[in-house]
Amino acid sequence: MFRTNTCGELRISDVNRQVTLAGWVQRSRKMGGMTFVDLRDRYGITQLVFNEEVNAELCDRANRLGREFVIRIKGLVNERFSKNANMPTGDIEIIVSELNILNTALTPPFTIEDNTDGGDDIRMKYRYLDLRRPAVRRNLELRHKMTIAVRRYLDEQGFIEVETPVLVGSTPEGARDFVVPSRMNPGQFYALPQSPQTLKQLLMVSGFDRYFQIAKCFRDEDLRADRQPEFTQIDCEMSFVEQDDIINLFEGMTKFLFKEIRGIELTEPFLRMSWADAMKYYGSDKPDMRFGMTFVELMDALKGHGFPVFDQAAYIGGICAEGAAHYTRKQLDALTEFVKRPQIGAKGLVYARVEADGTVKSSVDKFYNQETLQRLRARFGANPGDLILILSGDDAMKTRKQLSELRLEMGNQLGLRDKNRFACLWVVDFPMFEWSDTENRLMAMHHPFTHPKDEDIALLDTHPAAVRADAYDMVVNGVEVGGGSIRIHDPKLQAKMFEILGFTPEKAQQQFGFLMNAFKYGAPPHGGLAYGLDRWVSLFAGLDSIRDCIAFPKNNSGRDVMLDAPSELDLSQLDELNLVVKVKE
Amino acid sequence: MFRTNTCGELRISDVNRQVTLAGWVQRSRKMGGMTFVDLRDRYGITQLVFNEEVNAELCDRANRLGREFVIRIKGLVNERFSKNANMPTGDIEIIVSELNILNTALTPPFTIEDNTDGGDDIRMKYRYLDLRRPAVRRNLELRHKMTIAVRRYLDEQGFIEVETPVLVGSTPEGARDFVVPSRMNPGQFYALPQSPQTLKQLLMVSGFDRYFQIAKCFRDEDLRADRQPEFTQIDCEMSFVEQDDIINLFEGMTKFLFKEIRGIELTEPFLRMSWADAMKYYGSDKPDMRFGMTFVELMDALKGHGFPVFDQAAYIGGICAEGAAHYTRKQLDALTEFVKRPQIGAKGLVYARVEADGTVKSSVDKFYNQETLQRLRARFGANPGDLILILSGDDAMKTRKQLSELRLEMGNQLGLRDKNRFACLWVVDFPMFEWSDTENRLMAMHHPFTHPKDEDIALLDTHPAAVRADAYDMVVNGVEVGGGSIRIHDPKLQAKMFEILGFTPEKAQQQFGFLMNAFKYGAPPHGGLAYGLDRWVSLFAGLDSIRDCIAFPKNNSGRDVMLDAPSELDLSQLDELNLVVKVKE
Repeated sequence: MFRTNTCGELRISDVNRQVTLAGWVQRSRKMGGMTFVDLRDRYGITQLVFNEEVNAELCDRANRLGREFVIRIKGLVNERFSKNANMPTGDIEIIVSELNILNTALTPPFTIEDNTDGGDDIRMKYRYLDLRRPAVRRNLELRHKMTIAVRRYLDEQGFIEVETPVLVGSTPEGARDFVVPSRMNPGQFYALPQSPQTLKQLLMVSGFDRYFQIAKCFRDEDLRADRQPEFTQIDCEMSFVEQDDIINLFEGMTKFLFKEIRGIELTEPFLRMSWADAMKYYGSDKPDMRFGMTFVELMDALKGHGFPVFDQAAYIGGICAEGAAHYTRKQLDALTEFVKRPQIGAKGLVYARVEADGTVKSSVDKFYNQETLQRLRARFGANPGDLILILSGDDAMKTRKQLSELRLEMGNQLGLRDKNRFACLWVVDFPMFEWSDTENRLMAMHHPFTHPKDEDIALLDTHPAAVRADAYDMVVNGVEVGGGSIRIHDPKLQAKMFEILGFTPEKAQQQFGFLMNAFKYGAPPHGGLAYGLDRWVSLFAGLDSIRDCIAFPKNNSGRDVMLDAPSELDLSQLDELNLVVKVKE
Repeated sequence: MFRTNTCGELRISDVNRQVTLAGWVQRSRKMGGMTFVDLRDRYGITQLVFNEEVNAELCDRANRLGREFVIRIKGLVNERFSKNANMPTGDIEIIVSELNILNTALTPPFTIEDNTDGGDDIRMKYRYLDLRRPAVRRNLELRHKMTIAVRRYLDEQGFIEVETPVLVGSTPEGARDFVVPSRMNPGQFYALPQSPQTLKQLLMVSGFDRYFQIAKCFRDEDLRADRQPEFTQIDCEMSFVEQDDIINLFEGMTKFLFKEIRGIELTEPFLRMSWADAMKYYGSDKPDMRFGMTFVELMDALKGHGFPVFDQAAYIGGICAEGAAHYTRKQLDALTEFVKRPQIGAKGLVYARVEADGTVKSSVDKFYNQETLQRLRARFGANPGDLILILSGDDAMKTRKQLSELRLEMGNQLGLRDKNRFACLWVVDFPMFEWSDTENRLMAMHHPFTHPKDEDIALLDTHPAAVRADAYDMVVNGVEVGGGSIRIHDPKLQAKMFEILGFTPEKAQQQFGFLMNAFKYGAPPHGGLAYGLDRWVSLFAGLDSIRDCIAFPKNNSGRDVMLDAPSELDLSQLDELNLVVKVKE
């Protein structure tokens, strides 16, 4: 037995016990003839006391302990004279009788505190030290707690976790694959799975009925902030279900997780909104429902009054920011700058204040009389003190997205996006396809296995772009935490889908033959969904980035700076793999 | 709601309920005017009844259902006239009023039965159909149940599951890595982890204290039977522990799993045996302890009697097979052939029967008088009716291994290796190093991070080959299910270890610099172990191979024949990765 207790568990009831503790030196203070050392481990901090008068040699050794030294001590639990109510062990201290230095430590390059002085780069290089900080460790503890809870819930619902392989075949449809050269099959490559999608569908063909897996997935994409080349999905699939069965079950799981992890009881059914409404009222397929500020379309109200920007617009829409009429000219200019940033791309911003007396004062008063402005005000139901913000543009979808960014920014500025409040939403009835300008063809919005809505199947031949899918996303606080669909189980419908997506029958067979063949042997109706674990944990942890809920994340170039990976291979390794590296200049 | 019940849950108490079921047609029989269809899903089989007199059209459609068609039916639960006590739903049947064909099915290439007519190759190609067989599905259900139980146990013991990355750095020490070219870092490669060994040690440096992970691991080795290029480990690590702490905790987990999964209560502490004793008495570092037949060394007893084979031997040893004196000449010849097979490599086999009257009759009577043979008999404590089998050779270790194979074979032949009995054992005190003839240097037997036994550290300088390690394996029924060690946490000792293993300081720094640097910042004493999940599940499932407890295994060439992976890449993909394939002729 290396230690009798951890540094987080001793209490007043343990006074007078002889104990052995081990951990890291968080800090030490010398006060007169006494030396106090805070000993830290995963479970907490316990104060150690050394008394020069009692044992000068021991106290002298304690005085020479450096930060992050690893020590083991024996001593007697003592009631503290001045208790610390802020820490669970704050009622006691250990009068040390034996001190054993297990390992020394260089001075860490940043402080091991929640508010560290280390920047991102150095923290990532020394991630093993960064992970000592309680704030980071708590994120990973939460992640653990969450996967335990997910597994408990799904197990109780009859789901079986099945491990699907990591070395699979490459499927050029979708994002770019990471590939793995096969030494035993010269010139051939495995791919790492972008998701277990097709394999979980095969498990449904196998009659597994309810499958899940917390699975690593891989995408070789240029990394934006908050994307990782490897990420983790809670991947689920069910047979003999309709969309509502899936939504109900996973809404249940979500409520269970909120209760287990955050202690929040969500009693109401989650809101459901069609994709079309989400775009119309929020300009986003993942609206943040913690606040209102829904879009009001203003084409009829504002066109034809001589203001050329609006008169030429394909879309005019606005939001009403309650109580923001006090915004100064400077603040409004900043908002205008915000929407004009290249990432957003609006041309300008029109505003209208509702004054205390009810009159409306706008930035385009020259074109609109008070009567028109009052009608505008009525459309928003705006009250004195409110601020109306209006965007327009020649592409309705693009303008809506700009207005969505503005809405979120106003939500931030007005404090409407409290991280400790949660608004859950199902977005349903996604379009089946979206047009790709680069590919010059229709692409599957979700993936090629998504089932079209039954009532829209006839449109596949006549007007495919209008077809809606049995696809759904779960959105929490404006973050898409998960999504899924009912899948096609009819081989003929699947073949038609590949045709619309521009696959020749040969190419479809080559890439997805195993799945289409499987469907010929009795595929059940099935569907499922997948949650992004990293994103969900970061939401629960109140983090802005997924990085700090991942133990060893990669940077934006896909590098692990701690391991210094990736790196070059020995020539002999390349040779065994039948590969030659040829880096373009 | 797609169905009201599964095919496994209806009972006599459900009689007269209107139900909706869905599933696969297992088989159908026409008996007079009645048609009986067995409907199957994951949960069981329910008998459906169609009556020609009641509804001829419906019955006609039922008669045309093929094997593995997917159907949905509505009907009334009815008490069966002739009940089937062998199935949980055997008391009832469904009188069908509505039949809906959800999908047709081609005739499967093999029968979907526990005893299928399909061979290995065709079952793997159509693995999705193979997985429909209850016997295969039960293995995966057991695997799921086992990981749920492992996680529950470790969570309750304060372990945190931490996901470590799959894209890591290549470490040429150990087995061959699978590598992944990085598009964003031209000419550089990630490696897939052979195990999370170094990362879990970093987590100990981080103070995680108790870590586990059920992790995919990868080794690009030539595949022997029962090896997979990707496999799953239950990977664990603890800080501030001694060997006994780890052994006790995981012995507890093992007992918990035996109880949970197999309903077996193991009350006794597991046997512990030194590696030296395991080799001496069983010729194996993973002895099957379900039966005795321990080795008896016979150099003193049998040398110097004029039998040249023994007189020249460096090792003579034997086992006593109780009650096998009745073995015929033919059986003994077959045993001789068995040990002479090239995989085993013995030169011959000497036997000695203890007759009913107590005299010993041996195959080398010419050289040994009865007095010597009686002394031999006494060494084994052999009784009338027992058979003594003796091997000799000029390399003691090799001969012991041959004798071990013979012991296992005799265990099989005498029915001493019952799959439903379990004997658990810890093998401890492994040698630190083993000599490699190919590398012409000492290699780490476990891995380079293993801690030598404190009392042997002085030998590192003088006689490294004699150093024993704080390393331990858990062996169940002759299968190594797990193993681990106390790790080195002292950077100086670690550096010395790399030196003995033939690393230059530069090479050690290049390959393991991140770990050695981490150790400078306060590494706690730590250790751990890893279980092979696939092997353990197959042991619990009573399987001879790990393949049938893996959903989608690869064949001996590392191919997934269902997905047809690996495969060739498009040139454009290779180009993006800065690679040229150059297959040697």
